[in-house]
Amino acid sequence: MSAVRQEIPSTTVSSVKIDPYPASEKVYIQGSRPDIKVPMRKITLSDTPAHFGAEKNTPLYVYDTSGVYTDPKVSVDLRKGLPVVRSAWIEERGDTELLSGPTSKFGHERLNDPETAHLRFELIRQPRRAKAGANVSQMHYARKGIITPEMEYIAIRENQKMEEMRDLWKDQHPGQSFGASIPDVITPEFVRDEVARGRAIIPANINHPELEPMIIGRNFLVKINGNLGNSAVTSSIEEEVEKMLWGIRWGGDTIMDLSTGKNIHETREWILRNSPVPIGTVPIYQALEKVDGKAEELTWEIYRDTLIEQAEQGVDYFTIHAGVRLQHVPLTAKRMTGIVSRGGSIMAKWCLAHHTESFLYTNFEEICEIMKAYDVSFSLGDGLRPGSIYDANDEAQFAELETLGELTKVAWKHDVQTMIEGPGHVPLHMVKINMEKQLEDCHEAPFYTLGPLTTDIAPGYDHITSAIGAANIGWYGCAMLCYVTQKEHLGLPNKQDVREGIVTYKIAAHAADLAKGHPGAQARDNAMSKARFEFRWEDQFNIGLDPERAREFHDETLPKQSAKIAHFCSMCGPHFCSMKISQDVRDYAAQKGVKEEEALLLGMEEKSKEFLEEGAAIYHEV
Amino acid sequence: MSAVRQEIPSTTVSSVKIDPYPASEKVYIQGSRPDIKVPMRKITLSDTPAHFGAEKNTPLYVYDTSGVYTDPKVSVDLRKGLPVVRSAWIEERGDTELLSGPTSKFGHERLNDPETAHLRFELIRQPRRAKAGANVSQMHYARKGIITPEMEYIAIRENQKMEEMRDLWKDQHPGQSFGASIPDVITPEFVRDEVARGRAIIPANINHPELEPMIIGRNFLVKINGNLGNSAVTSSIEEEVEKMLWGIRWGGDTIMDLSTGKNIHETREWILRNSPVPIGTVPIYQALEKVDGKAEELTWEIYRDTLIEQAEQGVDYFTIHAGVRLQHVPLTAKRMTGIVSRGGSIMAKWCLAHHTESFLYTNFEEICEIMKAYDVSFSLGDGLRPGSIYDANDEAQFAELETLGELTKVAWKHDVQTMIEGPGHVPLHMVKINMEKQLEDCHEAPFYTLGPLTTDIAPGYDHITSAIGAANIGWYGCAMLCYVTQKEHLGLPNKQDVREGIVTYKIAAHAADLAKGHPGAQARDNAMSKARFEFRWEDQFNIGLDPERAREFHDETLPKQSAKIAHFCSMCGPHFCSMKISQDVRDYAAQKGVKEEEALLLGMEEKSKEFLEEGAAIYHEV
Repeated sequence: MSAVRQEIPSTTVSSVKIDPYPASEKVYIQGSRPDIKVPMRKITLSDTPAHFGAEKNTPLYVYDTSGVYTDPKVSVDLRKGLPVVRSAWIEERGDTELLSGPTSKFGHERLNDPETAHLRFELIRQPRRAKAGANVSQMHYARKGIITPEMEYIAIRENQKMEEMRDLWKDQHPGQSFGASIPDVITPEFVRDEVARGRAIIPANINHPELEPMIIGRNFLVKINGNLGNSAVTSSIEEEVEKMLWGIRWGGDTIMDLSTGKNIHETREWILRNSPVPIGTVPIYQALEKVDGKAEELTWEIYRDTLIEQAEQGVDYFTIHAGVRLQHVPLTAKRMTGIVSRGGSIMAKWCLAHHTESFLYTNFEEICEIMKAYDVSFSLGDGLRPGSIYDANDEAQFAELETLGELTKVAWKHDVQTMIEGPGHVPLHMVKINMEKQLEDCHEAPFYTLGPLTTDIAPGYDHITSAIGAANIGWYGCAMLCYVTQKEHLGLPNKQDVREGIVTYKIAAHAADLAKGHPGAQARDNAMSKARFEFRWEDQFNIGLDPERAREFHDETLPKQSAKIAHFCSMCGPHFCSMKISQDVRDYAAQKGVKEEEALLLGMEEKSKEFLEEGAAIYHEV
Repeated sequence: MSAVRQEIPSTTVSSVKIDPYPASEKVYIQGSRPDIKVPMRKITLSDTPAHFGAEKNTPLYVYDTSGVYTDPKVSVDLRKGLPVVRSAWIEERGDTELLSGPTSKFGHERLNDPETAHLRFELIRQPRRAKAGANVSQMHYARKGIITPEMEYIAIRENQKMEEMRDLWKDQHPGQSFGASIPDVITPEFVRDEVARGRAIIPANINHPELEPMIIGRNFLVKINGNLGNSAVTSSIEEEVEKMLWGIRWGGDTIMDLSTGKNIHETREWILRNSPVPIGTVPIYQALEKVDGKAEELTWEIYRDTLIEQAEQGVDYFTIHAGVRLQHVPLTAKRMTGIVSRGGSIMAKWCLAHHTESFLYTNFEEICEIMKAYDVSFSLGDGLRPGSIYDANDEAQFAELETLGELTKVAWKHDVQTMIEGPGHVPLHMVKINMEKQLEDCHEAPFYTLGPLTTDIAPGYDHITSAIGAANIGWYGCAMLCYVTQKEHLGLPNKQDVREGIVTYKIAAHAADLAKGHPGAQARDNAMSKARFEFRWEDQFNIGLDPERAREFHDETLPKQSAKIAHFCSMCGPHFCSMKISQDVRDYAAQKGVKEEEALLLGMEEKSKEFLEEGAAIYHEV
């Protein structure tokens, strides 16, 4: 075993990665067939203390992206990859065939390259492809009226057992959804319908059978993506696999591998084989590596080979900057920050060097043929997204968006699943028009935005500048939010940056779900607030997005175990606690032997008639 | 010198506190009289590298809350306090008199208490009070048509030398201000007018002459407040003074001292004498300490004495929960989290215990008399703010808001400056109605909100859950945002939490300024983005809200000094940089000897006519 191989964890993932969340249990909801088992995290809550009424608290079920890594009954060997979830479903459809090996030139070469042998993922599976003439996209099935196991899986997953938690959210605030139409219960038929009309996508490459299916669409829970990737400057395969595991542990719904350095083929294989969430890539990055970074030397053939190479590894969605057309390039000349998308700038450079239209645009139909042979979804890249507040919503950006709308129609003609990428840097008051234009220009295909960052002045805090924009655009209808870490503009994120970024974006996505009035979204907030009022400290930690940090922060001030059953906290101390005083108000009522409101009103009637005049209207409503 | 005294830094503040920001210089803008010298921070930028056009970059002026602590010419001795800024202005008005000593019973006792002698601030200044019958509030002067030096100071300060930076923001995006009316240039007359009509306040107690005047109002820059304060559980005087210095170093516009533990009188004195920003308090906290935490034993006399005690120390604004009326209390009985405001719960408990109307409400006119004798501003407390998403915008909250509107009119009858506190926990789509109702019910008095937090599920990250709400409500018209730290709901913030909280709220406030279209707000974003495009790394660090962190994050990946002049960064490496490729696009144009757009168009015309059909409309606009 070479030194480099030792970069890969030897047999199982480290204890951090498999540490389940506290008081949490991995449960599986059984679908209509034995092999549909949808994972969820069940958080067990303690009973309400006697003082507050001694009741049982319903367990909380939450969406779980962490795969079997948090299932104590499963031991994962990273060298062998995850158990397959979807293989039988894919096989049963009978519309695919196993290939004898990679059909891409590069994939074939790389497999036989002794130089990279020591880096290679051990378990080589034969790639699968649609039979000649077949279309294996979930959209194609959906349009034919077929409800796939993936769709049923997703319906169960999206419902999050909300029916069992009805008490927790039945009074939730009605939302403001700007035209979204989220049903109370997500049925498999609804999933099919949304995929068929292009309003949602299920990124699920037939070569990624390890995938636990999920959906991206405006009428489902808002999703988040975490990026990782090595660059020429830094990081190893091990680090990237670790970041992926770390990202899904904290709640990443998809992961994009944006590697641009060496061994990106091998890194991607390790990630895919161990990832229960969809993996997205930007194939132009690797294509550029193949021509030693010289954009002008890119060719359609090299790019095409890269698409096939990655499709046969199992990448679930490709960012393709086919909307950067030659005619758009001059529109960027007056910008403050030019073209900031790497893919966008590569294509702009290529167009200029050749004085010809982008080969991604001219070969778009052929790309669709590849996509549907493996069910890779489009993430139509916003190569001209603004890189500064100054450049927000300019002509270049919106011209490209219109082109993406045209391309969406082409993709849909081929039944290829499609989402649209969006900005970037946008001041708060200019965010909404982005969503509105996208819905209109792109015919309701799901929107997937990076932030947007609402100011440029806070390097080191861009997870926050962007979470503000992300929460807003999620509320307006954006289906997936691509996280921005605090290292944005400064360096590559490490594991702690990934955690901070993911949790920040879980907040933005959840704030959006609440604002849209997503049925059941408020259950977790209500469970938390009830625990807070009842001083159930352990439950407060456990219900939160980051139990470890919450506990750590609490213990910094009050480290003793006894403080966790105390009816006060370090902010105010025992005599000053407003929650405690609120309870005193209720207790006072209880002492009187009547319901609390009545007691209060009684007291008021007895002694305080004179104060009731002005407030009479309010008073009588109680 | 006792051991406890050594808790107070001995002569000067530690080096961290006086470290000026990098490449920054403290400058003073001279007003119409010699003693109006308005501080600003001037950030010197490097020249644009030759490759990008070799130009001088205008220095950036930014608002500076850090007082003389960042002036290398001034050495501050915390034991002596800050130099006075306003004494001459106050004296000249001739409407105040010096008192022989504290007139509050408690202030007097405390001054003569040997037990606290070792904790006492050394330099005891005689308190000042309005002469009998006089009203010394800035609102009173404003309504008489007087432009005070404070108002002129503020006008200069708010303008931030924007006229000198015109090039940087002349093309800034028009904002969406929801009815705010922010002029291009802030004149002293405009300040006077806004204060006169109650749309802005200048918290500036005549006993706080160290204060550098600032304004809070919807037509000025959005401000932020940082809280500090010891509790019965933890923290010392030294820590609190340090947190104040730390808070203003990072940009806190006001600081609230929310101490509830021991020695809060002495802590406050230390803070006030060393604070260049307005200090706010919640006097009921100290009043409650005086009755050993028994709310029912509070009396108007004890409370009144506390107001005078604190007014004579120099507190600039008081949070007074006079809107929590007896009749409102029953409205909270069905809440998820009851009453979460400490002040609100104390008053609710008092009202219930006595079955009588709140003494704050019944004595409100007398409170006004005290406020105008020292020019303490009201911050009318939202004692019934929601403590959970569930309780947001409920009847109790809005009933109190209406009462606060009534009280605003009473305060204004006395020419007492008034702002209104707001929530709390509110889902994103229910934030706007809070602002609208406040403007209407409270007659445009400035709104001052805590967050609001847009979800309850992320303890450990509530600076972020709340910054989302804060940026939005700031955009809608909120004048000041009270920060929430990541320790919220868990523990007391330490220094790093204060920094993180302040910077997060600077982001929210600035995002709001940009969205409102505040004239000049975009200058800093543009300066940053230009530096980013030109790879001026040092400038990028220096322009940002937290240069130290930006540099640290950058250096984590590329520590060498040479990387700071590199035309790439660690995210993509040298061959992959989109900024670099954008510049290549421009260079290509320059080689052709024509302007870049023309070159591009020329190239297109020469070789690419066939691609122009579809994009003709866009193309012709260029």
